Amino acid sequence: MKPLHNMRAGVFDSGVGGLSVVKSLLESGLFSEIIYFGDTARVPYGVKDKNTIIRYSLEALEFFKNFDIDIMIAACNSVSAYAIDELQKNSNFPVTGVIHPGVLAVKNKLQDTNSSILILGTKATIKSQKYKFFLEENGFLNSFSIAPSLFVPVVEEGLFSGEVLQSVMKHYFKDIKSDPDAIILGCTHFPLISDAIGKYFPNSTLIHSGDAVVEYLQNEYNLDKKFDKTDMKFFASENPDGLKRVAYEWLNLEKI
Amino acid sequence: MKPLHNMRAGVFDSGVGGLSVVKSLLESGLFSEIIYFGDTARVPYGVKDKNTIIRYSLEALEFFKNFDIDIMIAACNSVSAYAIDELQKNSNFPVTGVIHPGVLAVKNKLQDTNSSILILGTKATIKSQKYKFFLEENGFLNSFSIAPSLFVPVVEEGLFSGEVLQSVMKHYFKDIKSDPDAIILGCTHFPLISDAIGKYFPNSTLIHSGDAVVEYLQNEYNLDKKFDKTDMKFFASENPDGLKRVAYEWLNLEKI
Repeated sequence: MKPLHNMRAGVFDSGVGGLSVVKSLLESGLFSEIIYFGDTARVPYGVKDKNTIIRYSLEALEFFKNFDIDIMIAACNSVSAYAIDELQKNSNFPVTGVIHPGVLAVKNKLQDTNSSILILGTKATIKSQKYKFFLEENGFLNSFSIAPSLFVPVVEEGLFSGEVLQSVMKHYFKDIKSDPDAIILGCTHFPLISDAIGKYFPNSTLIHSGDAVVEYLQNEYNLDKKFDKTDMKFFASENPDGLKRVAYEWLNLEKI
Repeated sequence: MKPLHNMRAGVFDSGVGGLSVVKSLLESGLFSEIIYFGDTARVPYGVKDKNTIIRYSLEALEFFKNFDIDIMIAACNSVSAYAIDELQKNSNFPVTGVIHPGVLAVKNKLQDTNSSILILGTKATIKSQKYKFFLEENGFLNSFSIAPSLFVPVVEEGLFSGEVLQSVMKHYFKDIKSDPDAIILGCTHFPLISDAIGKYFPNSTLIHSGDAVVEYLQNEYNLDKKFDKTDMKFFASENPDGLKRVAYEWLNLEKI
């Protein structure tokens, strides 16, 4: 793949969750500008079917064509699972999701292909089996998947710790007998409860999409950490002010 | 308002939840035919803003104009809270929501206007203050509201009892010192956990939208229980087969 000629990224997510990927991108200094589009009017994608996810993703692509972006990053795992090929086919800039980078991060961190890997994601992401497929392509045959559907609403309710989160984790994790070697946080919301998941499985390595994407972009496109400051532009299909409020908080941005 | 001339209802909901209202309508025998449209591609509405809810509702109205319906019933509380006036303005058949009927059901069941009333609903419904407003119009000044956002995903996960539901109820209800006289189940999903809510508040009268709508239609339009059988047609903006599967289960329908 040819190297990028300049440093403007379009980041697409179904809602605000993709800001957890933006956070890593901002810290990385790889881009001079990031244009974020959250499809907040139609969030969540994780319960929708393949054709709907592809259709919505192609609409987002049309939006990004209004800007001179160098790369489009689908921060949403459900988009990454179903729409990357379609997005790539219909654009003249590279498009990357978070699944391939996530699997490469597992490979870099664990080496031993006998490692046990727990994939956490939305129903749509898990159903696609894309993580499992890429892991197997890289020799990791010992993976298993859970779609903890209540994690997203629990995070959106701000319950990053406490009794509700504990009972929800217990509900989904009750059959797991020992800590997996790695846990893929395969949904943009899950990094917000990574502390609680890490305490539940103290011996597991957690894989974060944002960090994985930064590592991937550095390796794949030879990008350097050369920008001290990244300009941010935020767009949303509904309530852009709400998105900006969350962004200021999560990303510690100055008021735009 | 003029009485209905025939007995075909269009029932609109953001997803499958409105089937809990259809269940009551089927048992009532008020209609010869019910046409159900669930906007499953864009569910849930309860987190969307007013203008989006109105826009989506008017699109559903256009859909129903393809059928010769006599009345449109918005089973979704968020639609009932924001879009009834717009729907009524743009149609030549009557449109009813579930909020006004719900408040009339409170009035019929409690009489005493000093009764304490807990309104449960989505964020959008509670924010609209429509239940509170109609209750006050009917003399009930002692109401309070909670938006237990996790109830919908907990119901969609099928957790109608057990530890997760208990911890979630405790989270939202922990500050309530004594059983309210009535609890309005102001979201189509909540009747599915009415047993658990009833056990949590054993001295409260629960108000169910479906039963309230049936009572309202009988009183407002002098409708009789005269149809032994109601034909059902199901439409969905995504995955209509999924909607039909849920419908067969919830409504004990023969395969269509």
